[in-house]
Amino acid sequence: MALTGRRKWLNEVIFGTDTPAGRRFDVFLIWAILISVALVLLVSVEGIAGRHGELLFALEWVFTGLFTVEYFLRIYCAVNRRQYIFSFYGIVDLLAILPSYLALLFTGASYLLVIRLLRVLRIFRVLKLVRYLRDANILLRSLGLARRKILVFYASVLVMCVIFGALMFVVEGPKHGFTSIPKSIYWAIVTITTVGYGDISPQTSIGQGIAAMTMLIGYSIIAVPTGIVTAELATELRHDRTLHRCDNCSRAGHDRDAEYCKHCGYKLAELEEVR
Amino acid sequence: MALTGRRKWLNEVIFGTDTPAGRRFDVFLIWAILISVALVLLVSVEGIAGRHGELLFALEWVFTGLFTVEYFLRIYCAVNRRQYIFSFYGIVDLLAILPSYLALLFTGASYLLVIRLLRVLRIFRVLKLVRYLRDANILLRSLGLARRKILVFYASVLVMCVIFGALMFVVEGPKHGFTSIPKSIYWAIVTITTVGYGDISPQTSIGQGIAAMTMLIGYSIIAVPTGIVTAELATELRHDRTLHRCDNCSRAGHDRDAEYCKHCGYKLAELEEVR
Amino acid sequence: MALTGRRKWLNEVIFGTDTPAGRRFDVFLIWAILISVALVLLVSVEGIAGRHGELLFALEWVFTGLFTVEYFLRIYCAVNRRQYIFSFYGIVDLLAILPSYLALLFTGASYLLVIRLLRVLRIFRVLKLVRYLRDANILLRSLGLARRKILVFYASVLVMCVIFGALMFVVEGPKHGFTSIPKSIYWAIVTITTVGYGDISPQTSIGQGIAAMTMLIGYSIIAVPTGIVTAELATELRHDRTLHRCDNCSRAGHDRDAEYCKHCGYKLAELEEVR
Amino acid sequence: MALTGRRKWLNEVIFGTDTPAGRRFDVFLIWAILISVALVLLVSVEGIAGRHGELLFALEWVFTGLFTVEYFLRIYCAVNRRQYIFSFYGIVDLLAILPSYLALLFTGASYLLVIRLLRVLRIFRVLKLVRYLRDANILLRSLGLARRKILVFYASVLVMCVIFGALMFVVEGPKHGFTSIPKSIYWAIVTITTVGYGDISPQTSIGQGIAAMTMLIGYSIIAVPTGIVTAELATELRHDRTLHRCDNCSRAGHDRDAEYCKHCGYKLAELEEVR
Repeated sequence: MALTGRRKWLNEVIFGTDTPAGRRFDVFLIWAILISVALVLLVSVEGIAGRHGELLFALEWVFTGLFTVEYFLRIYCAVNRRQYIFSFYGIVDLLAILPSYLALLFTGASYLLVIRLLRVLRIFRVLKLVRYLRDANILLRSLGLARRKILVFYASVLVMCVIFGALMFVVEGPKHGFTSIPKSIYWAIVTITTVGYGDISPQTSIGQGIAAMTMLIGYSIIAVPTGIVTAELATELRHDRTLHRCDNCSRAGHDRDAEYCKHCGYKLAELEEVR
Repeated sequence: MALTGRRKWLNEVIFGTDTPAGRRFDVFLIWAILISVALVLLVSVEGIAGRHGELLFALEWVFTGLFTVEYFLRIYCAVNRRQYIFSFYGIVDLLAILPSYLALLFTGASYLLVIRLLRVLRIFRVLKLVRYLRDANILLRSLGLARRKILVFYASVLVMCVIFGALMFVVEGPKHGFTSIPKSIYWAIVTITTVGYGDISPQTSIGQGIAAMTMLIGYSIIAVPTGIVTAELATELRHDRTLHRCDNCSRAGHDRDAEYCKHCGYKLAELEEVR
Repeated sequence: MALTGRRKWLNEVIFGTDTPAGRRFDVFLIWAILISVALVLLVSVEGIAGRHGELLFALEWVFTGLFTVEYFLRIYCAVNRRQYIFSFYGIVDLLAILPSYLALLFTGASYLLVIRLLRVLRIFRVLKLVRYLRDANILLRSLGLARRKILVFYASVLVMCVIFGALMFVVEGPKHGFTSIPKSIYWAIVTITTVGYGDISPQTSIGQGIAAMTMLIGYSIIAVPTGIVTAELATELRHDRTLHRCDNCSRAGHDRDAEYCKHCGYKLAELEEVR
Repeated sequence: MALTGRRKWLNEVIFGTDTPAGRRFDVFLIWAILISVALVLLVSVEGIAGRHGELLFALEWVFTGLFTVEYFLRIYCAVNRRQYIFSFYGIVDLLAILPSYLALLFTGASYLLVIRLLRVLRIFRVLKLVRYLRDANILLRSLGLARRKILVFYASVLVMCVIFGALMFVVEGPKHGFTSIPKSIYWAIVTITTVGYGDISPQTSIGQGIAAMTMLIGYSIIAVPTGIVTAELATELRHDRTLHRCDNCSRAGHDRDAEYCKHCGYKLAELEEVR
């Protein structure tokens, strides 16, 4: 559906980044987001909130008003309204104004306004940081390929944490801080990830022995996600270097030594070596 | 030995996953396991145990009774009884009911019921999560190949921990928390794995110097298991590609998503998912 | 511009490392730097400062005087004065004497003299540690290639820390140590990097649940920079082999210790060490 | 020099592992070492030392006497005495008895007897654990190849720790636990290696900001040694798989695709694929 008149102009300014007006709008928006997040941080610092409370409160509502108007304008001028509302950006745009209104009901909710930070992701589109996006894509693709392996890995880590946690609860007991199995599982996660706060730590000899075992296991399996991601990333990077596109189905990602397209079987053109 | 009559039907329901009844049985079982483990966690939380103690206690025995009956039925209808009893699942099934009975003798043993969690591994078979199993296999195979290297590595780490522990015991002494060499070894493990609880920490200058050295060594050798696992995993992943062989030119090394041979353009056969 | 007379001789001694005098000067300089940094460390230890305060104070000014004279001599005899002043070494040379003079205005500034340590980087040039420089170059080049990916990664980590920090501030609140969002962000960084001081740690069940999630995420994404650097480093190391080319069959990819071409058996030319 | 008579027989028993007597001697020795180290650990536990002090003291001297006699017998029957005394094992054998005699002069020295643990390395030779030795060799060779890169890396980490330490000393000062620059450097090492005891932690906002930066840097450069070791290990593993030995100079370690020996230029025999 083609837009006309005011809606078309608004769409170009708000969604577009090609016209000078559209670009200025986006730059203005990003600054507004960053400043409003900084405001939220400042509000949370007691001393500052005490002295400038009124001002900060007013400013917060100014920004919330601004973003609310912007949100409804976006819905108004979107090509496909339903699609925008349920898109990633649409949901983030909504979440970025909701906490202010929720704060009227629940104290503290306004601090969740930091979710506005996610809106800054638009910066990629504005500054046309294509090379950065491409690197982000490689990272995401590698993580995506490693998805199932990482899931299997986390399932095993969690099962181990539950079993070690229950063991420590039996061995150490509530008088050394292991007051319940869920809390002991929390301890096991703190230990196996090598964070080690020390708010709960084993006191008995047997407990320290089990803890030592937990640590050594954590130390050893820390290698597994690294191995997975590295192996996938290495494959991705190797693929990436090969800007090798099939002339028939125009899909890329062929190996360096490929002579035929792996997707359609078409003979590939000679590979110019780009790096 | 072929089973007949009731034993055959029971075997199909309890061990099998192909008939609707067998599938329903397994799904029911997994929920029962998850709920009973959740019960154990709840029992350990003081507040909840105080208010609903009787109910939780009763439920625990209901599940234990259920699993006990199931265990004996499994033995009754197994094709080869001895083989089932001493198989991995057979032992886990036994361990999953034992703690309840042990709890009659030793208080606290009932918390070990979390071992029931291991029974959930059956979920792989039920949901036919073949792709997940395959990824788990790659992980296990890599760890298996790296077995000896990791053993050599842990032996060296433990020897280092003993020597550093003894050194710190001599330097810091009992008045700074290093009350015995085993406890100092515990400190060395906490430090070298970079967990760092801080429940025991060096107070003297020399002790802090030795601790700094221990940390830097730990920081550096944390790289070794990662290196081992990554190298083996990369080989495994490459090996995975090697299994994909063209029927025409019989050259391997195709990507997982390849449909045509990259060397001769011939259509590749379907890659069967499990090995 | 060629230098003549005294300036030329000074330039050879101060900047050069080829004449015996120039070499002796640099060795003397490095010792002076190391001793003066050691002095700064000693001054900061209360007991020592109390007993030998006067002596240490005098020595500090001796070294500062020495380095000040040297700095102006360097400017005097530099081939291109402006270029030296704004070069990396020129700035470090200035920073290495400034804190002493600043200390006349602000107490404590003199401790910043440790920045002198950066001057020791000259040691690479003096000892002609070419092989070390080459390895440093490989490391720097790998990090350079991974630059954009690491930036994208850090941006995501920081966004996550801000959001988790705000969440914990709302959940735990000031009475458990999370006194403001910036402080909660500090906690999130301490947790996600697996440092885990334990000076601030969650006390409520929900808080501990969120903390556990933060840790598991940190544990998992710790793999990403490793993967990036490893993949780039592996490419760099392979590239290093690629430079070793046979003069006969002009195929590259020989090992560093290869003496004969592995493809045609021809004697390889000496591999020049620096690139 | 060939040995004769009693010296020859002793040499076969003490140094050899081929005769039944030599093998039995080594097995006996390893048990003696393990038991004597276990004794040292027990002595350090206060409760046990109090109850069985006399017995443990006596046993310690029995083992020291045994090892002293063994040490002099080794010198007596060595083929080349000077070579044995200054070999790695000769020095470890001496260090394994010295602390007992030093303990007559300095209290506490006897705990250093744990150094005896290093003697157990002989186990490799006794059990002919060739495959394990080979894996240990691969690890050591990788670390050896990465030596220079790791040194450059540690030099930079230490310089960074000194500079961050001095900065924190100025910012936080003695009243928050940063009592001297060496202690602040200790804090920087604890933080950058992600150990994080929490015995010293920043209290001011600026200090926490600098600490957060230190952590993020530590988190990022933790990737570098891993990358180095992984890259070298991957190369080593690839080499290892190729059991490819030149018939002329009998040196191995050629690439899979090598046709000529890289050391002497001799044509290599066909490679049988062993894995």
